[in-house]
Amino acid sequence: MPNPTAAMLVIGDEILSGRTRDANMHYLAGELSQAGINLTEVRIVSDQHDRIVSALNALRKSHDHVFTSGGIGPTHDDITADAVADAFGVTLGIREDARALLTEHYARTGLELNAARLRMARIPDGACLIENPVSAAPGFSLGNVYVMAGVPAVFQAMVAELLPQLERGAALYSQNLTIPRGEGEIAADLQALAQSFPQLSIGCYPFERNGAYGATVVIRGEEKAQVDAAMVRLAGLFPEAVA
Amino acid sequence: MPNPTAAMLVIGDEILSGRTRDANMHYLAGELSQAGINLTEVRIVSDQHDRIVSALNALRKSHDHVFTSGGIGPTHDDITADAVADAFGVTLGIREDARALLTEHYARTGLELNAARLRMARIPDGACLIENPVSAAPGFSLGNVYVMAGVPAVFQAMVAELLPQLERGAALYSQNLTIPRGEGEIAADLQALAQSFPQLSIGCYPFERNGAYGATVVIRGEEKAQVDAAMVRLAGLFPEAVA
Repeated sequence: MPNPTAAMLVIGDEILSGRTRDANMHYLAGELSQAGINLTEVRIVSDQHDRIVSALNALRKSHDHVFTSGGIGPTHDDITADAVADAFGVTLGIREDARALLTEHYARTGLELNAARLRMARIPDGACLIENPVSAAPGFSLGNVYVMAGVPAVFQAMVAELLPQLERGAALYSQNLTIPRGEGEIAADLQALAQSFPQLSIGCYPFERNGAYGATVVIRGEEKAQVDAAMVRLAGLFPEAVA
Repeated sequence: MPNPTAAMLVIGDEILSGRTRDANMHYLAGELSQAGINLTEVRIVSDQHDRIVSALNALRKSHDHVFTSGGIGPTHDDITADAVADAFGVTLGIREDARALLTEHYARTGLELNAARLRMARIPDGACLIENPVSAAPGFSLGNVYVMAGVPAVFQAMVAELLPQLERGAALYSQNLTIPRGEGEIAADLQALAQSFPQLSIGCYPFERNGAYGATVVIRGEEKAQVDAAMVRLAGLFPEAVA
């Protein structure tokens, strides 16, 4: 059975304006890789209702899972929950279990659960909550869409809560070899190798260090024996390379 | 006249697998911001021909400019030029001016211009070259699509070459205020402010430092006087805040 596929939707003007460097995508990519879920597309859109709705609708139809980050806080620019409700054509209102989580959290921290904070209990009809052990305000899943916070510590905690509930695929087995030659010199051999092992993904990533060119070759596949066989052949061609 | 809009397409399995953290998007976002070009969407897709073609066709129709990074090197997994040619329905072949750039570069560096390296002179019909002062192999523009390398030093050099050729918009004027309160406490005031200044973009970005919560409010707009007026009102509400 092929691995499940996933897309990520990052919602945030602050990423697109260059103010903030996104950290959640790189984190999620690593976690999904380990879980055998193939992340095949990421989209980053601005805080605009229609853009969020149409990206959500495109991605949830073409992928098994869609993970979102950003836009579920208490301020006026947090509009993700409304967009998700619209994308699914469901209504949105304060949910009592979400309100209870917030009530308990703010009572404990001595802060007021005011109207703005209560917005974080607005959950689309039919969704399940995703726990937030950091700051209480929950994420939620609706269908195959998982809606999480943009603050990295909260995003990571929500992913840790969510991922064990999803069906895992076969994590790809991967090996690296770093070859101290420019990629133009090893390209013909890599192409021949890719043709001999059509089931494997063979990537070549060039770098330059202190004026010297090199390339790291990454071989990935579902079958360890195949990856190993390809790696043995590659290492034989470049005895000066290091794993 | 409204500012030009832009999208970015990042091509690379290595980003989606979590192996590499993309650096080009954050760089381009900052440069476009200064040039008054509104980056409204980024997509990251894997090294698959059909996915690249359909993302390109969607983005080039919906944006004034599309910037791509990745997939124009000499190895078998570099398939961006082919995908761009297909998206535009044009042919692709070795271009003599691109070959000349490579010939000169490899003659100077004492390396062989072999078949793999010569692939980097394959340019879609009708495209203009984008110079690469770092490692010679050019990028290219075709219509409103600008195709650049994924290696950050090369990407940045190509952006520096390209951007002055594009029409600039009005760079947004922006001011920040950092308020030592949780965003839930300032949300109502921010919403009122956003309603009073509908032409401005007012974003709120929470953070936690040493256990204390705070939020940075970013006010952006085309008119300096408006941004300043909104900022004066906000600062008046929170005398403990710092610019």
